[in-house]
Amino acid sequence: MNNYTVTFKHENRKISVCEGTTLKEAITAEGLDFDFPCGGMGTCGKCRIKILDKNLKATEKELKFLEGKELKEGIHLACETKVYSDITVQLNQKKNEVYNILQSSTERTFTIKPLIEKVYVEVDLPSLDKQKSDLKRLKEKLMQKKPNYKNIKMNISVLRELPVKLREANHHITAVIHGNEIIGIEMGNTEKSMLGIAFDIGTTTIVAYLMDLYTGKKLAVSSAMNPQIKFGADVISRTTFANQNENGVKLMQSTLLDVLNKLIEDSVHKATMLKENIYAITIVGNTCMHHLFLGLTPKYIAYIPYVPVISETLEVKSSDLNLHINPSGKVFVLPNIAGFVGADTVGVILASEMDKSKDIKLAIDIGTNGEIVLGSSKKLVSCSAAAGPAFEGAQISSGMRGAKGAIDHVSFGESLNYTVIGNEKPEGICGSALLDIVAGLVRLGIINKRGKLLSPDNFTNPNALPFRNNIVTYEGTNAFLIVPPSETAHGRAIMLTQNDITSLQLAKGAISAGISILVKKCNINTSDIKEVILAGAFGNYMDPHSACTIGLIPPELENKIQLVGNAAGTGSMLALLSNDEYEHSNAIASKVTYIELGAQKDFNREFAHGMQFQDYK
Amino acid sequence: MNNYTVTFKHENRKISVCEGTTLKEAITAEGLDFDFPCGGMGTCGKCRIKILDKNLKATEKELKFLEGKELKEGIHLACETKVYSDITVQLNQKKNEVYNILQSSTERTFTIKPLIEKVYVEVDLPSLDKQKSDLKRLKEKLMQKKPNYKNIKMNISVLRELPVKLREANHHITAVIHGNEIIGIEMGNTEKSMLGIAFDIGTTTIVAYLMDLYTGKKLAVSSAMNPQIKFGADVISRTTFANQNENGVKLMQSTLLDVLNKLIEDSVHKATMLKENIYAITIVGNTCMHHLFLGLTPKYIAYIPYVPVISETLEVKSSDLNLHINPSGKVFVLPNIAGFVGADTVGVILASEMDKSKDIKLAIDIGTNGEIVLGSSKKLVSCSAAAGPAFEGAQISSGMRGAKGAIDHVSFGESLNYTVIGNEKPEGICGSALLDIVAGLVRLGIINKRGKLLSPDNFTNPNALPFRNNIVTYEGTNAFLIVPPSETAHGRAIMLTQNDITSLQLAKGAISAGISILVKKCNINTSDIKEVILAGAFGNYMDPHSACTIGLIPPELENKIQLVGNAAGTGSMLALLSNDEYEHSNAIASKVTYIELGAQKDFNREFAHGMQFQDYK
Repeated sequence: MNNYTVTFKHENRKISVCEGTTLKEAITAEGLDFDFPCGGMGTCGKCRIKILDKNLKATEKELKFLEGKELKEGIHLACETKVYSDITVQLNQKKNEVYNILQSSTERTFTIKPLIEKVYVEVDLPSLDKQKSDLKRLKEKLMQKKPNYKNIKMNISVLRELPVKLREANHHITAVIHGNEIIGIEMGNTEKSMLGIAFDIGTTTIVAYLMDLYTGKKLAVSSAMNPQIKFGADVISRTTFANQNENGVKLMQSTLLDVLNKLIEDSVHKATMLKENIYAITIVGNTCMHHLFLGLTPKYIAYIPYVPVISETLEVKSSDLNLHINPSGKVFVLPNIAGFVGADTVGVILASEMDKSKDIKLAIDIGTNGEIVLGSSKKLVSCSAAAGPAFEGAQISSGMRGAKGAIDHVSFGESLNYTVIGNEKPEGICGSALLDIVAGLVRLGIINKRGKLLSPDNFTNPNALPFRNNIVTYEGTNAFLIVPPSETAHGRAIMLTQNDITSLQLAKGAISAGISILVKKCNINTSDIKEVILAGAFGNYMDPHSACTIGLIPPELENKIQLVGNAAGTGSMLALLSNDEYEHSNAIASKVTYIELGAQKDFNREFAHGMQFQDYK
Repeated sequence: MNNYTVTFKHENRKISVCEGTTLKEAITAEGLDFDFPCGGMGTCGKCRIKILDKNLKATEKELKFLEGKELKEGIHLACETKVYSDITVQLNQKKNEVYNILQSSTERTFTIKPLIEKVYVEVDLPSLDKQKSDLKRLKEKLMQKKPNYKNIKMNISVLRELPVKLREANHHITAVIHGNEIIGIEMGNTEKSMLGIAFDIGTTTIVAYLMDLYTGKKLAVSSAMNPQIKFGADVISRTTFANQNENGVKLMQSTLLDVLNKLIEDSVHKATMLKENIYAITIVGNTCMHHLFLGLTPKYIAYIPYVPVISETLEVKSSDLNLHINPSGKVFVLPNIAGFVGADTVGVILASEMDKSKDIKLAIDIGTNGEIVLGSSKKLVSCSAAAGPAFEGAQISSGMRGAKGAIDHVSFGESLNYTVIGNEKPEGICGSALLDIVAGLVRLGIINKRGKLLSPDNFTNPNALPFRNNIVTYEGTNAFLIVPPSETAHGRAIMLTQNDITSLQLAKGAISAGISILVKKCNINTSDIKEVILAGAFGNYMDPHSACTIGLIPPELENKIQLVGNAAGTGSMLALLSNDEYEHSNAIASKVTYIELGAQKDFNREFAHGMQFQDYK
């Protein structure tokens, strides 16, 4: 059998191989850094190379993956190409070290450097004359790869496995490393099998992002309702439960951990992966969720001066939290800023990089509490505005969550138009529709500056006249009929009451006052703000024009609004994929100054002012 | 009431106090570093101070503690001295930071800096405007005490206790710190309650030293037999048990841990202390005991090339090993050098400081294996000589352990004289007596160069003649009668057989060959050795003159022998009291070169030569 030379052009390497050897075998033998995602089965079409000095006929499998243009250029699959003559090859594949996470508004570039490293080494066999211990021989090889592994430690449980695994694997092993500690040993080369999950734990919903820590790709997204809802709908009621029940914290923690384990199962199932390959979990959430996740009492968050137990990153073994991933796995919890501005807000800042921006930006994440951050690289201030549940459709007469049957958007033209989630008969209105309705009525002058729903006699705007019959009487005051009983799913009227308007005024007044106070704390004018980052589900659904019309967001900023979706979750993913980003979260948490709105002497005035509407008369 | 000024001269501090205030109150108010061991009750007499500018009359209590000379010098007790005028005081007490451990031969000075630190801090209360988390406020105070606490971490279980303990203790707490981690939080100031236990785990016996980590004092010593003896008397048989039984390692580990817990109980009981105040444990032992203690398989120590799993220090949580001390406690395991030269030998080197010595020293720790170390600060070589159990009285016809009824020393004058442990009728001979008898017979020419027990006809030394009747016939060859049946406890003769002599020759030949080979490896002559350090129980009991006569130790070194007792245990204590010493043990383990005797081509020749005796004809 003849031998032929394969030349790898860019790598400046030559290898002599027997005839019939595939290029995959040649690449592997030469130890070149090149991926075969399907293991060389010819089923993924990813191992594209270019043959520079020959025209080879494409195989049937290649024809399935390669386009005409590629075939003309000499592109082939390494696993399908056999060597029957001297050949010169260019490796086209680029290692995916830089990865972009696309948000709805911005692209964020960073280098993948996950929280957990895997290092494959071929350890020397023990020898009689050198008498080096198993750990010492392993460390020597690790140090050859990275000198700062010199002082790396191994914990006792891994150490117990080391001698046997080392010998069973013929001394070819992969060390799983976190920081200065070898947290696991695997037989053979498993460097590419490394998954992680970024969690965003909200009071109401939990989202899990399953990530490939080697490629940086998002493999699956799973979400679930937070089962702690049975202990209370909001942060305050859960804290109360924790304080009043001896095992309240433990109970809420284990309830939460159960659903996290289900989300882990669900996401690996979706991606057809194994949970044993998950080594890292990142966590963001508000301070109360953060504390309950860790089993820390949220008691002192609820009482003045509302301080959290911890405001820096924390690493915990996954086994200590009973999270079912690889037994060596670690959980990385992002830091809180204050009792009511948590790790989720740190995630938003991390994702938006507003702490590195020269321009002044305003980030708002609206839920039951609205977390607001204002500033630039020079200074960041934050507050939490107690908006209450109005934006989530609660405590609104016809209110409901943004689920099937909810009116989600409303517009006023010659008549009233609305859209319903799921295109069904409407059952109620969700938060975004509430904003649209009130904004429309304010613009038509049907709701006045102080929030009063006027009677038709007092309409002054001609465009309001088509809606004079929508004004009905409810419990002695005016109400606005949105859908008559005959057109609803349940046969009851859907309407907006004077009380509903007041609820909305309280909610938007709090947010508006928060923004005003932060603007003052920064010594700027509202017009200095260059971008408004609207994070979170509600921020993403609501119509920015309506939000500005009712004064939830200063109207002059309407053209500067960016919807960024679940930015807290994006922050969690960034921290998972990059140790630098994770470390940076500590800098963010200490940089942001927290302003307790209740302690500000001008809060009441700002709040009262914020409750008012613009005068469209 | 008048105020007076107390001047503390050396501290250059002045304090104004009301008349009648005691100096103890003044010292405490001024926050000076001065101990009141009995709490100022006037019952210990330790709070001596000197009054420089007044002659005060001594109180009755003072007269109990102070000598005439002290009274003349103006020495008083701070707790007894009340201020009725301006007064200048010199604090005589020196903080006990430097402590001497006296060994039988040498004094070793070091600075107390235990493996666990306790730091008392008065944490700021939380405030609304600063919103600092509990951990952050604690860290701020710790950093004031030591700036490198900046990046200190707290583990999750301690963090869970922090908010409640902080508030229950009115924010006055003591942080228990190991390295870069807060491992415990205690209410109030507990800085002085800090105990540790230094263990020396031998194949046969285990010793526990209970130490006060604040003062450096040894409070109690407890010891027990190693209960693993039921799985095998020596290292090889225990390793075999571990390899042949599925749960062999776990079983031997838990058996060992049980007795360690008993020794912990016993030592705190003796010292009337609480085991909850024990925060640190240090461990030395041979490599097999080290591995079994940690639950590491000793399998690969038993097979060529005999490498250990680990040869550096290791820290383990006490709870991970189920050792019943303070739940925050840590176990610090000293490093091994090789499969047959373990952490106990590192302890001997640490205690003797031979690695820092300009002079060449030889350390020998004789047991079933004799660990030998030779060298100086320039170079250290070590080996393990398989002496077998002869020195421990085993496999000797009349042999027994050094217990009650054992003849421990023998001398030959006009007749044979011996001493018996416990002054009872003798039952057998222990190792030290074996040495004395053989040495005596060699000097008398009754045992010849090759170890043969001569018949009376062949005696040439007139001093041998009184013992001609002691030569008896046993199993067809000569034997030496030590005690006739009528004088023994059991009515059987106690004698030395030709086989016994051969056993001793094998044992001393191995040690002697080990020494010779190390001398060659160091490229020195035996006479270059300036000191012989004999460590371990056997080394302490045996007569150095006998040991040199039979050639166990080169006779030219007889005047250089130092008996240092349990130097391995001393090393364990040093590491417990001083983090520097503990860290230094890693340098020792990597500095010492291990020589595998079986792999040396001149070993057989040296061994054969070492089996011979000197010719006293």
